[in-house]
Amino acid sequence: MADSKQRILIQLDSSPHASVFDAVTAIDAGADRLLQYGGIEPDQVRELIHGAMFTRGLDELKNTAVFVGGPSVEASERILEAVKHSFFGPFRVSVLFDANGANTTASAAVLAAERECGGSLKDVPVAVMGATGPVGHRVARLLCGLGARVAVGSRSRDRAAALAESLDQTLGARAEPFAADDLAQVLGGRAVVIAAGAAGVRLMPRDLWRGLESLKVIIDLNAVPPLGVEGVEATDKSTSKGNVKAWGALGVGGLKMKIHKRSIQELFTSNDKVLDVEQVLEIGRRLEPPPLIPRS
Amino acid sequence: MADSKQRILIQLDSSPHASVFDAVTAIDAGADRLLQYGGIEPDQVRELIHGAMFTRGLDELKNTAVFVGGPSVEASERILEAVKHSFFGPFRVSVLFDANGANTTASAAVLAAERECGGSLKDVPVAVMGATGPVGHRVARLLCGLGARVAVGSRSRDRAAALAESLDQTLGARAEPFAADDLAQVLGGRAVVIAAGAAGVRLMPRDLWRGLESLKVIIDLNAVPPLGVEGVEATDKSTSKGNVKAWGALGVGGLKMKIHKRSIQELFTSNDKVLDVEQVLEIGRRLEPPPLIPRS
Amino acid sequence: MADSKQRILIQLDSSPHASVFDAVTAIDAGADRLLQYGGIEPDQVRELIHGAMFTRGLDELKNTAVFVGGPSVEASERILEAVKHSFFGPFRVSVLFDANGANTTASAAVLAAERECGGSLKDVPVAVMGATGPVGHRVARLLCGLGARVAVGSRSRDRAAALAESLDQTLGARAEPFAADDLAQVLGGRAVVIAAGAAGVRLMPRDLWRGLESLKVIIDLNAVPPLGVEGVEATDKSTSKGNVKAWGALGVGGLKMKIHKRSIQELFTSNDKVLDVEQVLEIGRRLEPPPLIPRS
Repeated sequence: MADSKQRILIQLDSSPHASVFDAVTAIDAGADRLLQYGGIEPDQVRELIHGAMFTRGLDELKNTAVFVGGPSVEASERILEAVKHSFFGPFRVSVLFDANGANTTASAAVLAAERECGGSLKDVPVAVMGATGPVGHRVARLLCGLGARVAVGSRSRDRAAALAESLDQTLGARAEPFAADDLAQVLGGRAVVIAAGAAGVRLMPRDLWRGLESLKVIIDLNAVPPLGVEGVEATDKSTSKGNVKAWGALGVGGLKMKIHKRSIQELFTSNDKVLDVEQVLEIGRRLEPPPLIPRS
Repeated sequence: MADSKQRILIQLDSSPHASVFDAVTAIDAGADRLLQYGGIEPDQVRELIHGAMFTRGLDELKNTAVFVGGPSVEASERILEAVKHSFFGPFRVSVLFDANGANTTASAAVLAAERECGGSLKDVPVAVMGATGPVGHRVARLLCGLGARVAVGSRSRDRAAALAESLDQTLGARAEPFAADDLAQVLGGRAVVIAAGAAGVRLMPRDLWRGLESLKVIIDLNAVPPLGVEGVEATDKSTSKGNVKAWGALGVGGLKMKIHKRSIQELFTSNDKVLDVEQVLEIGRRLEPPPLIPRS
Repeated sequence: MADSKQRILIQLDSSPHASVFDAVTAIDAGADRLLQYGGIEPDQVRELIHGAMFTRGLDELKNTAVFVGGPSVEASERILEAVKHSFFGPFRVSVLFDANGANTTASAAVLAAERECGGSLKDVPVAVMGATGPVGHRVARLLCGLGARVAVGSRSRDRAAALAESLDQTLGARAEPFAADDLAQVLGGRAVVIAAGAAGVRLMPRDLWRGLESLKVIIDLNAVPPLGVEGVEATDKSTSKGNVKAWGALGVGGLKMKIHKRSIQELFTSNDKVLDVEQVLEIGRRLEPPPLIPRS
């Protein structure tokens, strides 16, 4: 009987209408049943999660899981906290956090960079543009965790500095803050640039990166023209541009989708997983066959 | 893998709670998964539709489709427009519009009339009562497209005239407007009368149509007593009343349900269909076996 | 074709988000499809129920059913009334009422008491604490119907008296009202005590019941510490405490879940069932194999 339980995914979303994107992806990942909840406020979470915790036996509880999404990463983070606080003792269900696609996108970008760098980002100098946005923040967090030498950029130097301070306090990592205006100086000696700015905003003109000796990889996560990095196309996927391998948003997107689906599937393997960006990165790394076959 | 994708129908509805009627019909038509969204505002549509467009490959996208319904045809038309504006290039999903059941009901009524008239309404004189309502409007639109000689009636002569003007501008069709008070005069020479008025409102007393030489077909779409046409029963289905073949709302309803389900199924045959009333009529006409076996 | 229809359960809930508990239970009971509706107001019910009544043939209509739930029993009772008023003639669908789990919980508690008393509660003296709450009210109602000699207690003597009056008027039953302060006197001679008070509220200290000659069964439905009856554990399930057999909330909960699921399944056996607490009790009684194997 335990084996025949349907895999139920509970979709909690802060926007009035729970995301279609997340719903279709969950279905394609194998969720047998989807319970969609939009307009979720943190104080409504406990009752819903208790309903998940107390309807199936502990040995069957891995077949019930929670997805926390929504357009606002901050609003969804409060929902995630409420989910985690609803658990007690062995009564818990697995949960995946991917508000605004930030965790799966950041993981895909970092994995792409890692593969291009021969499998490790340890001590690799990386610049993250748009690092104070939801995706950029997670890219920086992952890079710090992997031991890269990270510079975090923002239009506002103060916001960049605040992010570096936060990374120091939470991860003990030393990130170098920079303002967008100082990009040219920061680029010197960088092997990887990841652009995670707002949609439709150009962050780096071609002149700035063409001919940079040290640069090996550019990843631009903006899919809406004008793209973040001039000279990179949205469909680029390990595309050679001189000495640089370029990835555009759609190129990264294929890997992101694989990671997203695999993370959903991972939820249903036990009832105690909390999949935030670090866990999602590891899930992406274990994807078989290797998702990245560079094309030049 | 492409063939094994679940058929997902996204139900967009302007009322706070998405229609149960449309949901059950979609399930019975074969939608594997239903994502119900009530309380939809046009400005919320793009994000939802993009979620449909960007989660599956182009070759699989025919397995994702959209149903636009709701009690207010006008509100739902704005939703439909927003759906169509969300598409770009090959990125699109098929969509069926059937707010208030207007498209499937109008198509069923017109098909019933067409069959009773030997398979064509070309040059057939038809009077549509309640033509300015959502169903009547679509009945008139279809009849004009099929080349019938159409008179469009309303309680208000001005509204009837405005409808005729609109049919002229959009279809180049010459419909004759009439006020309900002038029904007796308009009926002279008519072969078909279709009553599409409000529920529970009597539009035509028996004396007005009994003995009319020219009249062959009466279709009354009102299911709530008093019915629209005195002497026609809701269950009439090609029922002989003297020289007239009569159809009531339930008699038409069986065909309407078949057309509704077949239209849902049609959505999943490609990713580029926009099924409004003209397309729905054609789907109804192709139904096999012929849906109308007259019973007298 | 009729046999192949999917079993659709329509979940109507007065809270903004339809209960996850009820949803998962419905899925595990075998509902093929679940249409969840939260934030339901009574005046929205007719349209939804008509959509259930008019989409399938009468011979198939047993495959469409309604569940009325929600945290407020009173709000949900108004929804249930609206559901019943939407039916006419043979056009109806089966409906289960279990707002706040009150019907299934009360049925499980009464069945546990009945089994402990040798299969009948006729003339058995029972005290119900917290009898004016939603579960306690239903426990009292069931006990009166089974011919027990019932005392109904509340913190307020007036509310207890009003309940006794109501049981007299609706069932012609003579229940004895008592205030919580008079519990000690009422306990004398009681064979069964059922505590249905608010979560986390102690209703009966150990000294009051230890050593009572007549007492055979204590059932405490409060799962949140401090429990309602001192000396009873939430996990007790026919556990011997001296001469008394004790049941806690989790002990009763297993039976409650079986009754809940069996009641969902019962909905799909015909289209004319209205399952309120008396019907749910009978469903529980028919559960095979006998759900209660006392463990001491």
